[in-house]
Amino acid sequence: MKNRFSKETKANFRQLILYGRHAVMSALQNPKRRIGKLICTAENAVEISRKYPQIPLEVAAKKDIDRLFPADAVHQGLALYCSPLEALSLEELCDYAQRQDRCRVLILDQVTDPQNIGAIVRSAAAFGVSAVIVQDKNSPQESGAMAKAAAGTLELVPVVRVTNLSRAAEVLKKSGFWIVGMDGYAKTTIDKVDKSGKLAVIMGSEGSGMRRLVEESCDLTVRLPISDKVESLNVSTAAAIVLYELSKK
Amino acid sequence: MKNRFSKETKANFRQLILYGRHAVMSALQNPKRRIGKLICTAENAVEISRKYPQIPLEVAAKKDIDRLFPADAVHQGLALYCSPLEALSLEELCDYAQRQDRCRVLILDQVTDPQNIGAIVRSAAAFGVSAVIVQDKNSPQESGAMAKAAAGTLELVPVVRVTNLSRAAEVLKKSGFWIVGMDGYAKTTIDKVDKSGKLAVIMGSEGSGMRRLVEESCDLTVRLPISDKVESLNVSTAAAIVLYELSKK
Repeated sequence: MKNRFSKETKANFRQLILYGRHAVMSALQNPKRRIGKLICTAENAVEISRKYPQIPLEVAAKKDIDRLFPADAVHQGLALYCSPLEALSLEELCDYAQRQDRCRVLILDQVTDPQNIGAIVRSAAAFGVSAVIVQDKNSPQESGAMAKAAAGTLELVPVVRVTNLSRAAEVLKKSGFWIVGMDGYAKTTIDKVDKSGKLAVIMGSEGSGMRRLVEESCDLTVRLPISDKVESLNVSTAAAIVLYELSKK
Repeated sequence: MKNRFSKETKANFRQLILYGRHAVMSALQNPKRRIGKLICTAENAVEISRKYPQIPLEVAAKKDIDRLFPADAVHQGLALYCSPLEALSLEELCDYAQRQDRCRVLILDQVTDPQNIGAIVRSAAAFGVSAVIVQDKNSPQESGAMAKAAAGTLELVPVVRVTNLSRAAEVLKKSGFWIVGMDGYAKTTIDKVDKSGKLAVIMGSEGSGMRRLVEESCDLTVRLPISDKVESLNVSTAAAIVLYELSKK
């Protein structure tokens, strides 16, 4: 881990400030993160300097750390300047998948809220998803709010950023994936999906669902069996249920 | 719906201000809500006054409605003064359950965040849960933030407020409920639970789980089958998966 720490104030990589215990501790454990400096309370400094003696530490009062973030950010006395994670390429994902009998991938169409994406990555990590694919143009970059909602799991599930989701679905099909789209109006419910092999599931935004062209890439569309008194679920809630169901053998 | 509207500025009931389209429109449709006045943008006023001509309306600019709420509240130009919903009693719930072959109830132990509770109620409504039981002392009262997170579903799922959760579990057992506790260390996974009959599932807080005394009320404890790389899920995410799984026949 020697070379990834830098004492320079202005690091030579795009910097990100992570906050919150899970997000910061997981980033420190990830050898792929380049670490700038850590600003933390005296209490946290004792623990961190013991575990990571090489990290450039700056001790600050809680109220000074507060000023680095929006008012509602629960930073727990930890603010870490570091590099964002490198995205995985679609080719790398397919190479990996081709060596597996079983694989799960989640494709997000027009999900733009960083906290929703973070929460979805947390569920993806919990249910063994190999990657989350997003459209580069419409998806937020990694951020402190996203990492906080992911509770340390951004380090576990790679994000693949592609130009065109329909084209990515075609590439996945060639690597043996079956493409399942979530659509509130579908006839079949998700529990009926054949769970063997490789599955890529596409979820659209809460308001408008998948775009038509993206939906046309699907081998089948399914829905969650929710009460007709309820219009929809929050996208991150729906994703958690979908990934749970598809994690079954 | 005649008598539930009041033009008095100071209504004679504890007032709540609901905001957001789903929360406000669902409250207006619920005959059990006593309605004070609605403050809304001119655009919303056209629609509302056509649908609900009896409502005392006050048209205001978006920026003036902003001032009624915290900075991050997405009110969508609607602020409704109304009564909170009346809680259901445990006895009423048991009376109802005794007439059913199948029933689902969710018990929350120490879940204190209003937004988590709202999100959980939304999932409870989606998966046909008959009631959510909370400990009166430790649970937040109905609020605008809770109703916003519930997206209109507070009107669908009654909340039962009890003094003691263990005692409530005993009462439910006598009404034929099987008590299932969620515990990350349990041996059995939730998909193994017998889904016939009446089930009450207990979920603890994200940090510390169920309290020991509450856990002792359980007929069995189960866990969600998550990766050992991930410590836990957010409580509202976990609840959604649990309620989905237990909604199966």
